Amino acid sequence: MVKEPKPRSWRVVTSEYLSRKPWFTVRHECIEGPDGRRVPDYYVFEYPDWVNVIAVTAEGRFVFIDQYRHGLGRTDYEIPAGVIESTDASPLAAAQRELLEETGFGGGEWRPITTLSPNPATQNNLTHSFLAVGVTRQSEQHLDETEDIGIHLLTKNEVLELLRTDRIRQALMAAPLWRCLAEELIP
Amino acid sequence: MVKEPKPRSWRVVTSEYLSRKPWFTVRHECIEGPDGRRVPDYYVFEYPDWVNVIAVTAEGRFVFIDQYRHGLGRTDYEIPAGVIESTDASPLAAAQRELLEETGFGGGEWRPITTLSPNPATQNNLTHSFLAVGVTRQSEQHLDETEDIGIHLLTKNEVLELLRTDRIRQALMAAPLWRCLAEELIP
Repeated sequence: MVKEPKPRSWRVVTSEYLSRKPWFTVRHECIEGPDGRRVPDYYVFEYPDWVNVIAVTAEGRFVFIDQYRHGLGRTDYEIPAGVIESTDASPLAAAQRELLEETGFGGGEWRPITTLSPNPATQNNLTHSFLAVGVTRQSEQHLDETEDIGIHLLTKNEVLELLRTDRIRQALMAAPLWRCLAEELIP
Repeated sequence: MVKEPKPRSWRVVTSEYLSRKPWFTVRHECIEGPDGRRVPDYYVFEYPDWVNVIAVTAEGRFVFIDQYRHGLGRTDYEIPAGVIESTDASPLAAAQRELLEETGFGGGEWRPITTLSPNPATQNNLTHSFLAVGVTRQSEQHLDETEDIGIHLLTKNEVLELLRTDRIRQALMAAPLWRCLAEELIP
């Protein structure tokens, strides 16, 4: 067992919210290190936890979407993902809801794969990733008002090609996909 | 070859900077989809591109650090990483500089592993990940004023244990590590 590193916690000297809006909640803090050094302008961005899901049909097809993402200004391949809502009973329930809403797929055998941080320096939230094997089409898409999403059923080789060419750009999606491949978790 | 998805680009209707400070540069935009739907409050966070490096010594030890990260409020294991400065000739040069500054290690054979997005929805930047094999200790650490970093030389099995137990929490670091393991890129 690798032991935990020695904690190097910094102390919060002052803290104020600059904004508390959806997708723009930010704290401005002055923090002080163990030796008294201060960082006077530290910004922490707050978000709910997120989920995503690697969904594979009984025929071995990966359920992918494509979606325009305005930060990079690109339309890229992604796995289904979203925010854990206060009405979701658990991260698993949120992932199952998002998969169904975005693609109409559901069912199958589900397992957690990894829980990672989008950025432990700047954000306070985590992303829970799941693997769902044997999903089937249950319904049509039920998109949020601002969602515009295409669905693609990809082979394992196509997913590997997208990963190898950095066309699955979101690190929170690439990490669990590479983990499933490294650990041979997908039949 | 998997073909590119159909572009679904949204148009910027209005755009203003709410802040232009280091680690807090944010644009507030109204954007309009291909079908005329509008999102009136979209926030894009701007950062320089980042780099990180999986560095392995000639003895097969992985050069890890631990660092306090205030977003999560935790001290975790990480691979060396940082911001590409305007004085860096290339992402590779930035990664070599960061490895040397944070750990004192350098040299070896370098190759790019992945270029991923921290978040294509909310951020405009990318992270370039490198693998460096055969690094050796060249000097002491040369830390920035606010850095407080421990160095650990871990075996491959220890790295695998940290990955499997989600103790390498930063997705931008977990993704290239899992990729190196999945593709057996590390001798």
